[in-house]
Amino acid sequence: MVTLCKPAVSVPEYVITREETLALARSLHADHPQLPLALRLIENTGVTQRHIVQPIEETLRHPGFEERNALYETEAKARVPKVVEEALGNAGLRPADIDMIVYVSCTGFMMPSLTAWLINTMGFPSHTRQLPIAQLGCAAGGAAINRAHDFCVAYPDANVLIVACEFCSLCYQPTDLGVGSLLSNGLFGDAVASAVVRGRGGTGIALERNNSHLVPDTEDWIAYSVRATGFHFLLDKRVPTTMEPLAPALREIAGSHGWDAGDLDFYIIHAGGPRILDDLSRFLEVEPEAFRFSRATLTEYGNIASAVVLDAVRRLFDAGGLSEGARGIIAGFGPGITAEMCLGRWTAAPVPSLEPDLNSRRIVGYSPAAHPARAAH
Amino acid sequence: MVTLCKPAVSVPEYVITREETLALARSLHADHPQLPLALRLIENTGVTQRHIVQPIEETLRHPGFEERNALYETEAKARVPKVVEEALGNAGLRPADIDMIVYVSCTGFMMPSLTAWLINTMGFPSHTRQLPIAQLGCAAGGAAINRAHDFCVAYPDANVLIVACEFCSLCYQPTDLGVGSLLSNGLFGDAVASAVVRGRGGTGIALERNNSHLVPDTEDWIAYSVRATGFHFLLDKRVPTTMEPLAPALREIAGSHGWDAGDLDFYIIHAGGPRILDDLSRFLEVEPEAFRFSRATLTEYGNIASAVVLDAVRRLFDAGGLSEGARGIIAGFGPGITAEMCLGRWTAAPVPSLEPDLNSRRIVGYSPAAHPARAAH
Repeated sequence: MVTLCKPAVSVPEYVITREETLALARSLHADHPQLPLALRLIENTGVTQRHIVQPIEETLRHPGFEERNALYETEAKARVPKVVEEALGNAGLRPADIDMIVYVSCTGFMMPSLTAWLINTMGFPSHTRQLPIAQLGCAAGGAAINRAHDFCVAYPDANVLIVACEFCSLCYQPTDLGVGSLLSNGLFGDAVASAVVRGRGGTGIALERNNSHLVPDTEDWIAYSVRATGFHFLLDKRVPTTMEPLAPALREIAGSHGWDAGDLDFYIIHAGGPRILDDLSRFLEVEPEAFRFSRATLTEYGNIASAVVLDAVRRLFDAGGLSEGARGIIAGFGPGITAEMCLGRWTAAPVPSLEPDLNSRRIVGYSPAAHPARAAH
Repeated sequence: MVTLCKPAVSVPEYVITREETLALARSLHADHPQLPLALRLIENTGVTQRHIVQPIEETLRHPGFEERNALYETEAKARVPKVVEEALGNAGLRPADIDMIVYVSCTGFMMPSLTAWLINTMGFPSHTRQLPIAQLGCAAGGAAINRAHDFCVAYPDANVLIVACEFCSLCYQPTDLGVGSLLSNGLFGDAVASAVVRGRGGTGIALERNNSHLVPDTEDWIAYSVRATGFHFLLDKRVPTTMEPLAPALREIAGSHGWDAGDLDFYIIHAGGPRILDDLSRFLEVEPEAFRFSRATLTEYGNIASAVVLDAVRRLFDAGGLSEGARGIIAGFGPGITAEMCLGRWTAAPVPSLEPDLNSRRIVGYSPAAHPARAAH
């Protein structure tokens, strides 16, 4: 049984409230012909505050792509280890128990990715697989869970560490003045999150099935324009309409599992914006309250990209979890437009002691044939 | 049995020979104090020519990161579909049979990645998993094979398409004047490659085990500096010495499988440079001739980054393959410094007809429990 354990989430110490965001928009874009629309859109997000890695004065300054990307690296190294340690603790594991690190982040670019640094500095084994994903945007949180799930299906003794590091404020582009950009400036926030997917044992969401769905011919609805000034986020006004084609994909994965997407016990949905949550609850015919964890993330942190689903899962844990076997769905949405979905059941079984397993599972490399347990699955 | 089928490889129509490279280095860097060293290093690469996506006059011009990255996208869209079609044909599959696309490329950056465009334009199913990897550099070819292997171990009915798209010439930085940069300018070439990993059936290399290895504290030996002018490739002079720590990792994965890394029937090794091949054959105590496929790639195409291992595998096929059950290793090396290794056996079993399987495997989403075949593996 592959289990997503309790995520750890951290948001930076600098805060910008909705009121400050609106005041900034009014002063920076006083002459903008669509300012009233932008202000209304920002108000409608329901975001009350965002956390950012620098004071707002610094955030508004664009020091160049190189300096920003260097800051991304500095901030990632300063903030990621703490959530990783906490996530490992939540899973009852040590760095030596991890077989793969899935590192998702679309707001900075490093090669090698932070995975190499994490292995070197935090004591992960030298054979830890590194899976850095930079191009799935907000869908990458769901993708990380799904690829971790797949890996543990292949190798049931494996454990996968997920890290989502999103400093959206470092992609602020002062020269982007479209309404989509003004809205984005009031919507996205910064956060780092981490969680472990255990092949065996652990408390949390037992992952049972995953799938992906690409909405045809929507590649340019959410995209980066890559320029000398860095990544410029392009948000098409049609994006909020995407729940109509995506709701059937959620219904389909649930149906193929013998479940009804409109009748699940928990929903962890990418909080891209308020309309995504409103529309999806309507299309799935579930109470808006069912999306309360995602909505709380949006309200308190803003859209924190690939970290949204991990934060919403964390809130589910903090709320006390659910009854054993409760059924639910996790869905990340992002560029493509892509949905990364998975189904799981709440499992409150205690984390077993690892000691008896250690000698048997510390093999070098995996061979399916070498896993007797696999045939017994 | 998970099988890596015959790769398709394509190199661009523009060619620069070693003589032209040396003449260019002499004229562009006539006053460079280390020109003689750079020329000697370029001569020692053994690269006789490289293929590039533009005429050399255009390649030497830096039109800005934005224009270069746009060119990356244009060229990728122009060149990738053909190798994908050929790779599918080699595997006896159609787009509808593919469950995941692993797209590896470190020489351009798109979000969404080319995976979304490929799904939209080539008829892959909307549920095709997208796994774009941009941050593993030259190791990504090995990583793509290994993650495809893992996915098919998890879901034995699955098929994974690998695409490696590397236009290294679009990362040429005229202002980078270190000896490592001058050498790189004479070493790297452009290529696109594709291959299918089939969960069942197919002719090629039956994948049995994979592993990864990070050489401790070498993060900055191969790295990108991300700047307004794009990705600047940093190559430390210690990189050619990495076979000493990596040879034991190859010995270890082979040994854990009951094989001897010094006594295999084929070797597909990342042709990062001549010393990598020379040293590794020495450390593994195998004849240099054992690395002939990799060496041919290096000689005829230069270092084509993540596409190297796929091209070397293609050459193994073109040479007529091997006897049934012949044992071998594939190893990609790249930033980290990371090795992505796998072991496999040559399998010449014919590609079976797909028709009988189609109805049973076209499920939406995967559930391990729904795969009776998995327990029988």
